[in-house]
Amino acid sequence: MTSTTAGPDLTVATTANAPAAPTAAAAVALHPVPLGASRIRGGFWFERQEANRRQAIRTGYEKLETSGNLRNLRIAAGTEQGEAKGPIFMDSDVYKWLEAAGWEYGREADEEVLGWIREVTAVVAAAQAEDGYLDSVQQVRGKGERYVDLPWSHEHYCAGHLFQAAVAVHRSTGETGLLDVAVKLADHLVATFGPGKVEEVDGHPVVEMGLVELYRETGTQAYLDLARWFVDARGTGIIERLHGKEPTYFSDRVPVREQTSPEGHSVRAVYLTAGAADVAAETADGDLLAALTRQWEGMLASKTYVTGGIGARWDWEQFGDHYELGPERAYAETCAAIGSVQWTWRMLLATGEARYADLVERTLYNAFLPGVSLAGTEYFYVNALQLRHGAFAEEERSVAHGRRPWFDCACCPPNIMRTLSSLDAYVATSSATDGVAGVQVHQFTTGTIEAAGAALSVTTDYPWDGTVRVEVTATPGEFELALRVPAWAQGATATVDGEAVAVTPGEYLRVRRDFAVGDVVELVLPMTVRVVEADPRVDAVRGCVVVERGPLVYAVEQTDLPAGLPADDVRVRVAELRGARAEHRPDLLGGVTVLQLPVHAALAAATGPLYRPAGDDPAPEAAEETTVVPAVPYYAWANRDLGAMRIWLPRA
Amino acid sequence: MTSTTAGPDLTVATTANAPAAPTAAAAVALHPVPLGASRIRGGFWFERQEANRRQAIRTGYEKLETSGNLRNLRIAAGTEQGEAKGPIFMDSDVYKWLEAAGWEYGREADEEVLGWIREVTAVVAAAQAEDGYLDSVQQVRGKGERYVDLPWSHEHYCAGHLFQAAVAVHRSTGETGLLDVAVKLADHLVATFGPGKVEEVDGHPVVEMGLVELYRETGTQAYLDLARWFVDARGTGIIERLHGKEPTYFSDRVPVREQTSPEGHSVRAVYLTAGAADVAAETADGDLLAALTRQWEGMLASKTYVTGGIGARWDWEQFGDHYELGPERAYAETCAAIGSVQWTWRMLLATGEARYADLVERTLYNAFLPGVSLAGTEYFYVNALQLRHGAFAEEERSVAHGRRPWFDCACCPPNIMRTLSSLDAYVATSSATDGVAGVQVHQFTTGTIEAAGAALSVTTDYPWDGTVRVEVTATPGEFELALRVPAWAQGATATVDGEAVAVTPGEYLRVRRDFAVGDVVELVLPMTVRVVEADPRVDAVRGCVVVERGPLVYAVEQTDLPAGLPADDVRVRVAELRGARAEHRPDLLGGVTVLQLPVHAALAAATGPLYRPAGDDPAPEAAEETTVVPAVPYYAWANRDLGAMRIWLPRA
Repeated sequence: MTSTTAGPDLTVATTANAPAAPTAAAAVALHPVPLGASRIRGGFWFERQEANRRQAIRTGYEKLETSGNLRNLRIAAGTEQGEAKGPIFMDSDVYKWLEAAGWEYGREADEEVLGWIREVTAVVAAAQAEDGYLDSVQQVRGKGERYVDLPWSHEHYCAGHLFQAAVAVHRSTGETGLLDVAVKLADHLVATFGPGKVEEVDGHPVVEMGLVELYRETGTQAYLDLARWFVDARGTGIIERLHGKEPTYFSDRVPVREQTSPEGHSVRAVYLTAGAADVAAETADGDLLAALTRQWEGMLASKTYVTGGIGARWDWEQFGDHYELGPERAYAETCAAIGSVQWTWRMLLATGEARYADLVERTLYNAFLPGVSLAGTEYFYVNALQLRHGAFAEEERSVAHGRRPWFDCACCPPNIMRTLSSLDAYVATSSATDGVAGVQVHQFTTGTIEAAGAALSVTTDYPWDGTVRVEVTATPGEFELALRVPAWAQGATATVDGEAVAVTPGEYLRVRRDFAVGDVVELVLPMTVRVVEADPRVDAVRGCVVVERGPLVYAVEQTDLPAGLPADDVRVRVAELRGARAEHRPDLLGGVTVLQLPVHAALAAATGPLYRPAGDDPAPEAAEETTVVPAVPYYAWANRDLGAMRIWLPRA
Repeated sequence: MTSTTAGPDLTVATTANAPAAPTAAAAVALHPVPLGASRIRGGFWFERQEANRRQAIRTGYEKLETSGNLRNLRIAAGTEQGEAKGPIFMDSDVYKWLEAAGWEYGREADEEVLGWIREVTAVVAAAQAEDGYLDSVQQVRGKGERYVDLPWSHEHYCAGHLFQAAVAVHRSTGETGLLDVAVKLADHLVATFGPGKVEEVDGHPVVEMGLVELYRETGTQAYLDLARWFVDARGTGIIERLHGKEPTYFSDRVPVREQTSPEGHSVRAVYLTAGAADVAAETADGDLLAALTRQWEGMLASKTYVTGGIGARWDWEQFGDHYELGPERAYAETCAAIGSVQWTWRMLLATGEARYADLVERTLYNAFLPGVSLAGTEYFYVNALQLRHGAFAEEERSVAHGRRPWFDCACCPPNIMRTLSSLDAYVATSSATDGVAGVQVHQFTTGTIEAAGAALSVTTDYPWDGTVRVEVTATPGEFELALRVPAWAQGATATVDGEAVAVTPGEYLRVRRDFAVGDVVELVLPMTVRVVEADPRVDAVRGCVVVERGPLVYAVEQTDLPAGLPADDVRVRVAELRGARAEHRPDLLGGVTVLQLPVHAALAAATGPLYRPAGDDPAPEAAEETTVVPAVPYYAWANRDLGAMRIWLPRA
């Protein structure tokens, strides 16, 4: 099954920074490899990137026009007339798309994409006020007022996304047009906000990440200082004091240095912690990093779905209480998964601990990727882990619609685009410890990695096959090659030039030697079927299990079930599930390995009333006969006939 | 334990209609007894009515002033200046309070209450426009516009509550001041809306019930006709066509004649069906009644909590999908429970079937009553069936606050008031079948009933004790006395003048004879502990059971648990629960029977990660040692230290 698709030629010099690249002075254990030095060149993620490139980014460019985002900017510039359209944060979609296009140009130089970038940059630049202020909807609707409703206006939020976009475009194209706009706006923010100036924070974090990246790109210390001030000013009830808003939603109830479990609006919460992690790295703030570690552990302990998704509540898109992780109305916003990856990636850079790369993997495959169709053109804003029979599809975000081409609140689609186009950066890092260079491989994909003076060629059919072959194609001599061994990979084995070496799941396999060209390190992760249950305090999935294989969570879709077996009537026996046969189906869903699950049908539940006398012991729930039904990777669901779906399967 | 509290003297002639009283010509099996002919005179509900009378209605009167409701009306009248305050439907709180005060005056004439009614009526009347239009917030904010945003403006909704209030005040006091206002507004509605006029419906039903009641009180056919038109115009996407709103929320996706399961905003849905049931009765529309029966059965089959509560979703206060009945974020709005009682009561009148009275009972005790504190002064808007440790109490409606004195959206408090002050009406009905008069006793309370020429004295300590003693105190000779035998009451027995008669749970015990004064019918309902489980399609409570006794659902509160036993760690064995000892505690929570539940502590769950390998069989979940902890009636929870609570208890 080894993919032979060739990757595009590398067109960017491997000296520009990748996303979220700490400065040389930052207190981090690992450094991203430069832009283009890690390349996904085939296989699973490459195909998603290609769909992103060929479909999503192109469609996104059109949507910015048809949805009115660019028109808003032109109205602000005075080159068109009319009222602004859409939510207050419409500019941020433009910036996330620009960021995606920027990283995408870094993947493969394409004059058409560069043309779009220049064209959209010109529209953005024209809208900017003389003094640097920029927020088209506020400029058009705000009657000259600025920053009067920061809890909701998203003015800093839009700025943060602009900064991220400008950095991406500058790093990948070398052009400074968008960077000039960003610097002008950042200087305006520095002149306006901070201690002794306007002491306020935006209702929606992201400017913190953006300012730190802009600091990294420009060296302007004031950007880092302002980011740090925003991080520390928040969590003190500042929004409540100034605007009378309840603080939790805005991550403003508890200072980030004291918080132990994320709360409130999930995207806000993890964008803030991601920015705080950037600040901690660049200011070598160990206390802040320790606080972020506690909060990350708190998220993992009681507020993360088995998919890695976060944010349980539909109402206000918020984290739920501890263990409030019901599948049927999981919100698990796609943007929240992206924010979690961003935060967790920064924790990985700071610490080098494999658990962070494990969560990045889980989240990318099972919480981020379900957000986009296989064709790359339709999106889930909300990612329920169960769809009931007869579920209702009226609300714009209803999972029962299936994925949709765009949203009135279109935060997720361009967020997915920028993540896919920068995904190469999450594969590997480099380090220099005790004078020895190191290369760490965190995510498994066919591709090439140039780092620490070495070059590696990685070949794998992951996530379908567990063999990851890393060949040294250039070497500086001695270095340490570290391959993540996922915590789920009990029984993993490895060889170095054919000789077995010990591996420990949940840690890195570290091979430190004087490598020669042609040396091969091979990691074999057991692709057995795993059956997982939840802490019993997750009431909503009591008595249920999830089937996993490799990094993937599996789902049962109605379309794969025999007539007369509703998805909600599937019952399972764990011992039988472990024997489920894996079958690769190149024809199905773009090529997936299905698991042939032995299941049982629930005994006729429909005969009784909704509530009924309970027996001393639970009544036998399922028929003895076994039916074998295919389960598909959860990320691929809802790409065929949309019907009932579940990942948590009740025990028989 | 027999209560000896004396009821107030009956001050209202027993000729005025009770709430929701069909005309003599209506197609109903049962008729409410006239106002005052059914009197709750002691015991459980009497105490709640006294708290309502002495605390809630008085406080409500003050809140109408301090919250700005009356001020809005005065501004509309031109006697005060300023901006209107609060949500668009602020007038409806005034009307619901007036209705409560009206029924309360019917319970016991109190000059202070009558003075308040007159005073508030004058404020309302002064605000009414010359042509009958009345909606203070719209009058003040609307710049002369009317009915321009009916999906959200609640103009008909407020009118409907005014009509109900006017009818209550007229029936109980005989005064016509408020009725005149109502008639003037109703005439205005009739002149404005309907076929060939403005063909629109309000976003929030209730005007249908109000118009039918006003028809009953005035005999004006046009009110009934308009109510019928509103019922039939709805469900056709009329709101979507005229205003572009998604129809489900507004009960506008499916005509009520075709709907099989309630959907959308729960209060809207059941207010509409209640009004439709009134229309069906007054127009003898059997098809409409049949449709309502199907929909009611659909609600019971998959969209009703074990408490009788309805409306699962926080987002938009809506019904969930089928079987979406999770306890941890149950919305179960108090107003929705009230609407369910109103609808179900009308179904009972139409059909005489015991199942409707069963649901009224379940809902009153377990979904309505939890909405108000024992003191009668604080309210739950939302009624979660579980409160987790560390649950968060920021949102105004958060259950984790405990009950609150009032809300910005204060629909529930005066709705509770009017329900308690009219509760006597739900106790009994009369009928005349085959020339024989009948009296039906649906709800069990100490009190008196005058109906069908007979008078009955009922004595009981229900819901703590299951003996209901009905003595005939006046008799017309032959009549049929029917006592509901709840479906839960397996093993019920009865005697007529000491002789055993057969009873069938879920039906009425019907005793038809030539009654003499002093005859006694005694029903004995077994107050055993019942353990109930849900249809397995209710995923959220898989493996859990609920403990019930009599009509009451029980809850475990943290405050009653030993140190070191979190509520979420309570595990139960059904056989042990059945032996739970009932203990009446007059000192506790206003006097409750607690159930001493044998429970087990969950084995240390905290030691593992959130997700973990599943064993072939579920791991033993609980320690062998048994601890006995008291469970309290769910309605009484959150009246002491607010902590974790659950009604669904996992099996060990």
